[in-house]
Amino acid sequence: MVEFSVNGYGTIGKRVAEAVTKHPKLKLVGVSKYTPDQDAKLAISCGLNVFVPKDSVKSFESKGIGVAGSVDDMITRSEIVVDASGDKKGVLNKQAVYKPQNKKAIFQGGEEADVADVSFNARSNFEQAKGKQFVRVVSCNTTAYCRLLKPLIENYKIKYINAFLIRRGADLSDAKGSALNAVEWKAHSHHAHDVQTVLGNIPISSVAFKVPHTHSHINSMSIIFENGTPSKDDLIDIYSKESRVAVLNNASTSAQIVEAARDLELPRNDTYVAAMLANTVEINDGGVFFSFSVPQESIVVPENVDAIISQAGLMPKEESIKLSNEILNIPKIKSSLEKIFA
Amino acid sequence: MVEFSVNGYGTIGKRVAEAVTKHPKLKLVGVSKYTPDQDAKLAISCGLNVFVPKDSVKSFESKGIGVAGSVDDMITRSEIVVDASGDKKGVLNKQAVYKPQNKKAIFQGGEEADVADVSFNARSNFEQAKGKQFVRVVSCNTTAYCRLLKPLIENYKIKYINAFLIRRGADLSDAKGSALNAVEWKAHSHHAHDVQTVLGNIPISSVAFKVPHTHSHINSMSIIFENGTPSKDDLIDIYSKESRVAVLNNASTSAQIVEAARDLELPRNDTYVAAMLANTVEINDGGVFFSFSVPQESIVVPENVDAIISQAGLMPKEESIKLSNEILNIPKIKSSLEKIFA
Amino acid sequence: MVEFSVNGYGTIGKRVAEAVTKHPKLKLVGVSKYTPDQDAKLAISCGLNVFVPKDSVKSFESKGIGVAGSVDDMITRSEIVVDASGDKKGVLNKQAVYKPQNKKAIFQGGEEADVADVSFNARSNFEQAKGKQFVRVVSCNTTAYCRLLKPLIENYKIKYINAFLIRRGADLSDAKGSALNAVEWKAHSHHAHDVQTVLGNIPISSVAFKVPHTHSHINSMSIIFENGTPSKDDLIDIYSKESRVAVLNNASTSAQIVEAARDLELPRNDTYVAAMLANTVEINDGGVFFSFSVPQESIVVPENVDAIISQAGLMPKEESIKLSNEILNIPKIKSSLEKIFA
Amino acid sequence: MVEFSVNGYGTIGKRVAEAVTKHPKLKLVGVSKYTPDQDAKLAISCGLNVFVPKDSVKSFESKGIGVAGSVDDMITRSEIVVDASGDKKGVLNKQAVYKPQNKKAIFQGGEEADVADVSFNARSNFEQAKGKQFVRVVSCNTTAYCRLLKPLIENYKIKYINAFLIRRGADLSDAKGSALNAVEWKAHSHHAHDVQTVLGNIPISSVAFKVPHTHSHINSMSIIFENGTPSKDDLIDIYSKESRVAVLNNASTSAQIVEAARDLELPRNDTYVAAMLANTVEINDGGVFFSFSVPQESIVVPENVDAIISQAGLMPKEESIKLSNEILNIPKIKSSLEKIFA
Repeated sequence: MVEFSVNGYGTIGKRVAEAVTKHPKLKLVGVSKYTPDQDAKLAISCGLNVFVPKDSVKSFESKGIGVAGSVDDMITRSEIVVDASGDKKGVLNKQAVYKPQNKKAIFQGGEEADVADVSFNARSNFEQAKGKQFVRVVSCNTTAYCRLLKPLIENYKIKYINAFLIRRGADLSDAKGSALNAVEWKAHSHHAHDVQTVLGNIPISSVAFKVPHTHSHINSMSIIFENGTPSKDDLIDIYSKESRVAVLNNASTSAQIVEAARDLELPRNDTYVAAMLANTVEINDGGVFFSFSVPQESIVVPENVDAIISQAGLMPKEESIKLSNEILNIPKIKSSLEKIFA
Repeated sequence: MVEFSVNGYGTIGKRVAEAVTKHPKLKLVGVSKYTPDQDAKLAISCGLNVFVPKDSVKSFESKGIGVAGSVDDMITRSEIVVDASGDKKGVLNKQAVYKPQNKKAIFQGGEEADVADVSFNARSNFEQAKGKQFVRVVSCNTTAYCRLLKPLIENYKIKYINAFLIRRGADLSDAKGSALNAVEWKAHSHHAHDVQTVLGNIPISSVAFKVPHTHSHINSMSIIFENGTPSKDDLIDIYSKESRVAVLNNASTSAQIVEAARDLELPRNDTYVAAMLANTVEINDGGVFFSFSVPQESIVVPENVDAIISQAGLMPKEESIKLSNEILNIPKIKSSLEKIFA
Repeated sequence: MVEFSVNGYGTIGKRVAEAVTKHPKLKLVGVSKYTPDQDAKLAISCGLNVFVPKDSVKSFESKGIGVAGSVDDMITRSEIVVDASGDKKGVLNKQAVYKPQNKKAIFQGGEEADVADVSFNARSNFEQAKGKQFVRVVSCNTTAYCRLLKPLIENYKIKYINAFLIRRGADLSDAKGSALNAVEWKAHSHHAHDVQTVLGNIPISSVAFKVPHTHSHINSMSIIFENGTPSKDDLIDIYSKESRVAVLNNASTSAQIVEAARDLELPRNDTYVAAMLANTVEINDGGVFFSFSVPQESIVVPENVDAIISQAGLMPKEESIKLSNEILNIPKIKSSLEKIFA
Repeated sequence: MVEFSVNGYGTIGKRVAEAVTKHPKLKLVGVSKYTPDQDAKLAISCGLNVFVPKDSVKSFESKGIGVAGSVDDMITRSEIVVDASGDKKGVLNKQAVYKPQNKKAIFQGGEEADVADVSFNARSNFEQAKGKQFVRVVSCNTTAYCRLLKPLIENYKIKYINAFLIRRGADLSDAKGSALNAVEWKAHSHHAHDVQTVLGNIPISSVAFKVPHTHSHINSMSIIFENGTPSKDDLIDIYSKESRVAVLNNASTSAQIVEAARDLELPRNDTYVAAMLANTVEINDGGVFFSFSVPQESIVVPENVDAIISQAGLMPKEESIKLSNEILNIPKIKSSLEKIFA
């Protein structure tokens, strides 16, 4: 049993904390909270130990939120810290806490790549995290790109990739919000480089557009091959075998996928899988084009679990992925979505 | 055991069908579908019998959707039909099917009041549906108004009510959509009259605004009393005792409530309760003003269950409401929401 | 001729600067800019003198934006400064600059009331700004409330007002944005108190809802009278005579009003007038209810012009309002909107 | 002077009608209206002759809208009819009216290509419309694609184009609306084929995404060349010379461009030009990628004017384009936008 904690109990932190409570090899010391808000009350009602900054104990307890100890206590008692603190605070925590205390830590994709010894995607480079002190789980879109590109790289020689991202403007509960009636764009977005931190020096460029909705990123890739372009059937065949990719034949809006998650009564509507939109596949002279949907809140959850397992050296790749998938019900989710959108 | 069916398996129909499968006195014959879409596949995957129009059997089966029989078969085998067909098709079904076949039917609030012998709200007039052939469960907002006004009427004398509705533009999965960047208004909206179909001739006027979001209606009421205005504590006290009203002290956006439903892992994010927003209460000279949130997709589900029970004369009011609440987990939902927003 | 300047060239500043260039009694020294952005280039292309902080001159000129001098120069050369700096920076400017240099200044409604000697609405208290060093033009919604309540106060005795605001989430060009798929609320919003800073101690409470669209605030008022309630015709008659209120009989969405402004080819789609929505009027026992639309970007522009005139003692009330209206084409705008929505 | 009329006075019709009133070679007989709405009143207030269906005269006049005659009268008195009737009604008008009466007509891009003898883009195939009875001005996005691809085709040999469209969900005043919180997609969208109706058999595929905002389509193209790929400077050089393309170096949201149009006080915020977003240009091995913005309401207006001129044989290409540009102030608009976003 590895004792670990989650530093930052927000969108990602609360999902990772819940996932690991079902894992036989992992023991959650607790989670940290910095403000006595809705999420803090949620953590308590989930029976978690909540650790807060020393000088915030009173402000939490005055709101009826029982405190298990200080954040320092939590770190001291943990072998590994999953840092889900957000807003590029992970690098500060690394310098101030994890490094001086010689703790292992797992960072999220919002941090720069150089915060860690390795950028991680379970499907692509599980073994590289083994024994490393600092591991970074790449962001939601980069995770999806890795899941979809790695199988292609194993089978074909890629000449060039143009990636187009239509990003959701904000998560449902994001108080910062986004422009209400506009499309924003960022050419040369960081995603191309970020994919390279995992997959090595593949030729890729990316442009990101932000649009005013809250559900899922919709991505597209135009891929040119050196030789031997896959057919549509080849692509579907390849992705059907991937355990964290669902192949949807008939989806036509992001809302349909979320509605399916609701009707399947998935907790928090989380699907964890990249959804390859098979009806968008276009094969042309030497290239393919297709789109896929990314559940931005949940896709990195299984990756965080696997990152802990790899970092702590607890299981080999296939075994870890299989177990994380089972804990999160991913095989059933993949199969149900594929049936509904058959 | 009363055998009944759900005619129309959409937003309301699928929720009612699921609710009653847990009810000891009710037996679901099946549900009807008119198009072989995502919802039809969902019904099959939920193990329901799906009935379709006679001449659509082939088109369903060609899409791999097994058909249990014709819609006519379904009606014949049912003692009561919950009509959730939408778009004012209920009144057509009444004339064409329910009346000629002498079947009992329950209609939804989208139909005009005169489709039925009585307009129904469990808290307000449960007994009036007993033995009636045609019962209409009032719409989501009207249901909330009845739940909130009935206890006031029992304790105070109301002089006048001004109701303000901020309606969600469309449900998540509504393909028809809504104006994207506008507020639409409807003075003298039907809600005032609709409340009167249940509560009798109380003096009320209403104005409805439609705004571009998908989660919950946010309503407000300005109530003038003849004499004896309740205090804020009185209001909170009254509503805390109502089983289908939650009193939230600290919510400040509709998104927070939906996020709480997700974090509580409520199936489909459904809460069923009207959420009284205690921090909006304003007491002035002779009147009160406060707001409340309405989960537009789920609030009428327990009302439909109770309507069947009342119509079929299976249980008395308190027993039926208690059982419907338990089936839908409403006491726990009320209590959890009240804690998170304490 | 009064020499004045505009400190802060954003949503309000650029409109005020343009308006006064047509005023025979006012001379614009120039405008200040703090970042070399799109608005700075606009100011140049409008032929305005642009003043910037001393240490920013190079950064502006490196972007091809010619600088007329420092902000300090601009203030020194001005008799009156219209402070449109936003984000509560006006009060800082007052302490740091206007007070030490003994300059007159006009602040906007985003500042607290105590920043100024008087809160100003041309229709309600034009004369009170005369000779004052610091004047505050109240915010867009408060301006509309004053324009609509003052004529009622002159004719009737009001017992109580409940105000209900549906605010636009953000302006089109607001990079900070807003929650994308939510309604946010603020009970006991500042608007009630703000109306009192102009109209005195009238009994009023207000609740504000923020919704995700960019065009106009839609407000409603429920007004209870002590005795003698106006009829719908009375209301229409009263507001038809107000020069900065348009009475629209048949509008039903905020988008229609913006589209009309576009079709009328109004510069920047600005209408300046509060639009009373006559089809929302509801008369009940002792009270009235009606809604109105507020063009949040432009409604305070004529008020700022009048505030300068009053503060400098250049003209009496009626003459000033008439001239400001003519400069901004308001009589034609009112009449055109009333015709289109007749 | 050619006498012509506009059949359908909506988003496009009202813009074309206004444009031509400034054209020395064209005389507008009038416009048709089928419902007595806001646009009908606008037409009257613009001093246009309004023609309505014979049996609607009374309903228009009862709303105070003076009628100049029947739609039949209008067609009879016109040499050319610009059909802007929308919703694929153009093809019905062709069969019922234009063909039997042997009138020339210009259709919009919402119609199928085979409604006309030629699909038209002024820059690409002006001469082909000469003398044709039926001409179709291609849709807004297709118009932009033609303006941007034609100059490339003249200079380079294109191997393949992947087009990627982010469409606005609905126009501001579109009552039909769109999904509020979703991205919808359409693989193999009609745009690829539509470009070929003008430019001939170039190899192109397209995918279209619809997102919930109201301002402008944002398009991207990934273009692979046979040999000789242009540099970024080449692209900017090419497009800078195009009179109906603006090259924007620093725009980063669609809202900024609309705000610039408002600040430039362009009537209806119309810009008419495709805005090439120079900061999105990406050059890779053998290909280029870049994005551009399309003002969906106005971009086809100059094309309609040129289509009339070409069809009637009134002027040669360069002269017509130059005159249409001047009438609509396009050279100034291009230059101003390029300065603001320099």
